[in-house]
Amino acid sequence: MLGPLEALIPFGIPCRSRNFSDVHTPATLVRGGTSKCWLFQQVHVPADRGALEKLLVAAYGSADPVELDGVGGATPTTSKAAVVSASPASGVDVDYLFAQVGIGTGSVEWTSNCGNCATGVALYAVAKGLVPITGDRTRVVMRNTNTGAVLEGLVDTTGGVVHDFGEQTVPGTRAGGVAVGLTFRGPAGRTTGALLPTGLPAQDLRVGGADPVRVTMVDAGAPVVLVDAASAGHTGSEPLDAMGALVPWLRSVRHACAPELGLAVPGAEPGDAVPKVGLVGPPVAYTSTLGDRVTADAYDVSVRMLSMNAPHPAIGLTSAVAVAAAALAEGSVVARAARSPRDGRLRIGTPAGVVAVACEDVRDGVPGRVTVQRAARLLADARIYVPDHAAAPGSRRAA
Amino acid sequence: MLGPLEALIPFGIPCRSRNFSDVHTPATLVRGGTSKCWLFQQVHVPADRGALEKLLVAAYGSADPVELDGVGGATPTTSKAAVVSASPASGVDVDYLFAQVGIGTGSVEWTSNCGNCATGVALYAVAKGLVPITGDRTRVVMRNTNTGAVLEGLVDTTGGVVHDFGEQTVPGTRAGGVAVGLTFRGPAGRTTGALLPTGLPAQDLRVGGADPVRVTMVDAGAPVVLVDAASAGHTGSEPLDAMGALVPWLRSVRHACAPELGLAVPGAEPGDAVPKVGLVGPPVAYTSTLGDRVTADAYDVSVRMLSMNAPHPAIGLTSAVAVAAAALAEGSVVARAARSPRDGRLRIGTPAGVVAVACEDVRDGVPGRVTVQRAARLLADARIYVPDHAAAPGSRRAA
Repeated sequence: MLGPLEALIPFGIPCRSRNFSDVHTPATLVRGGTSKCWLFQQVHVPADRGALEKLLVAAYGSADPVELDGVGGATPTTSKAAVVSASPASGVDVDYLFAQVGIGTGSVEWTSNCGNCATGVALYAVAKGLVPITGDRTRVVMRNTNTGAVLEGLVDTTGGVVHDFGEQTVPGTRAGGVAVGLTFRGPAGRTTGALLPTGLPAQDLRVGGADPVRVTMVDAGAPVVLVDAASAGHTGSEPLDAMGALVPWLRSVRHACAPELGLAVPGAEPGDAVPKVGLVGPPVAYTSTLGDRVTADAYDVSVRMLSMNAPHPAIGLTSAVAVAAAALAEGSVVARAARSPRDGRLRIGTPAGVVAVACEDVRDGVPGRVTVQRAARLLADARIYVPDHAAAPGSRRAA
Repeated sequence: MLGPLEALIPFGIPCRSRNFSDVHTPATLVRGGTSKCWLFQQVHVPADRGALEKLLVAAYGSADPVELDGVGGATPTTSKAAVVSASPASGVDVDYLFAQVGIGTGSVEWTSNCGNCATGVALYAVAKGLVPITGDRTRVVMRNTNTGAVLEGLVDTTGGVVHDFGEQTVPGTRAGGVAVGLTFRGPAGRTTGALLPTGLPAQDLRVGGADPVRVTMVDAGAPVVLVDAASAGHTGSEPLDAMGALVPWLRSVRHACAPELGLAVPGAEPGDAVPKVGLVGPPVAYTSTLGDRVTADAYDVSVRMLSMNAPHPAIGLTSAVAVAAAALAEGSVVARAARSPRDGRLRIGTPAGVVAVACEDVRDGVPGRVTVQRAARLLADARIYVPDHAAAPGSRRAA
């Protein structure tokens, strides 16, 4: 008869024999802005999308709501991955496939992009030698293979070397990182065909029975509805809880504008993602959600956005692009609220702090390139022990 | 004049020059039971406690409530660390110093131990060659240097090799791992001096004006008050939400018992941690919080514990030790409720599933060793990029 310990530990459970490289997958954890993302090199993971998804689900412990049995962070901003490779496309340095690894779903969402992760990819590409350093700044041209979008990352390589650490911050965290300028190429009119889809820099809009409010509809990075806060009795520098109270009204504004952007038929509710909507006002002193006092001199324009019908804690990168592009249009609600002169560089005050955006190659008021100041940092180089992901889901459950 | 991009990326921020090994700290992420823990070897981190704390805070991003800028998991069960070394103590293989890395505090709590992490340390010690493999089972004697407690881990090394993966589960997760039996040596009477501090295997207790309930007070692993559920009109197999409703009553029971355990003066509220308190009942079929149907044959006794005055999702390891030790005492509420015969191995039904506990070296009803069946898995071997932790807090904030 077995003693209690022998009975406790089952004897002879078959062990798995797999190649070392199949089990120990190299990956690097990066922080890009306010996201954490594991980066894999294509040569280390399957090219087949289904097999790759199984690998990521197994590596992250994605079947579990707390991603206990893996390297996932169990929040949407810390359960991201990207697969990086040298690009076969002319003029592109690296391709990256972005993966939003599901939390508790055991699946991966493949249709989106992530600007934060792109800044991490840019730093990684330089740090891992995929792109040669070119002096104090190194440009990395990246193609997001999920969407086809081409982005540029301008990585601070001061002194001609890669830096492990840096002092650049982004709104939403005090953590410093290596400065990475993230450039959106030709962002105007991608959805609607024009920077100003209605042909007007601003227009008055009557929502419900209320007095008209002044709005700018702009398509750059994403289609965005920007409301002149003052025209509606607001400031554009509202704290997040005050923004929460304004959600129903701002939803009705975007609802009213969506048909003019071709994003919904009149009367129908537009999808949650676009158009994005927010309030714009002049710079005033305020306290950020990190507790920092921000003076009116420290930035050029106040913006308070919604994201998926809730107040955004800072501002999405594509919304920042839209705000900066709108600032170029004389008479837009941004141009009227923002500090002048505007030399192509706009500092946007968000609830979490200030983010700087630069427009370049401006022709007929349309920016050819829009760059958002971001930061990234490598957090860890690792070999991940990936459970046997070829097995059927649930096969690792105890017998 | 600077162009917008030059203005955007500040030029000439000083880069830090440090030794490679100072920046890239080797560490291994393990899952022990339902916790994730980074393990460091003592040779790679400072021996000085203050310097070590700064390193961990920097590596985890602990100053930030979401541990964005580091490898911390931003929950109490995923923001743990341990430093492992060969032990100078006779009969001990490895010492480990446990660190509960604060989330948003920028500090480390050094006074506790973690049984889950201990199982990870045991597997790690074998996998990293700190302890030689001894056939199909390898015993690792560990000293927790926070508390001085000595524990043993019996690691499944079937075939005389370390396994990266395994099928053993613990309540609270479906994830399989390598079986590790975690043994508490001489756990009885550590707090009160006796396994049965009142000298009785069970006694009737009147709480408030209600009818008396039958309780067993036991000191093994921790001082624990176990209530015969049936004597109070309950089952001991209550779902978690029903347990929530019983919290005030169970608090009053532990309040009444604490003075008899020497843990509070009569009338005073005992501390939240001990004595622990829970309901005990016979095995019945139930559905676990993972959604699994558990038959009455699959376990021996139902237990529903509180932890820090809230329903425990499973059972704490020290409470499991107490329940198993109490089962040895004829007439205890556990012995009366549990399936017989009891051969020293007790399967405890918890809300999250079944955990097996074995008592050995029993003399005069007192177990010399109590082993809880656990599982562990190595998740990743890494080199962590640790920001300059010698710098003062906040120095990495942007100028």
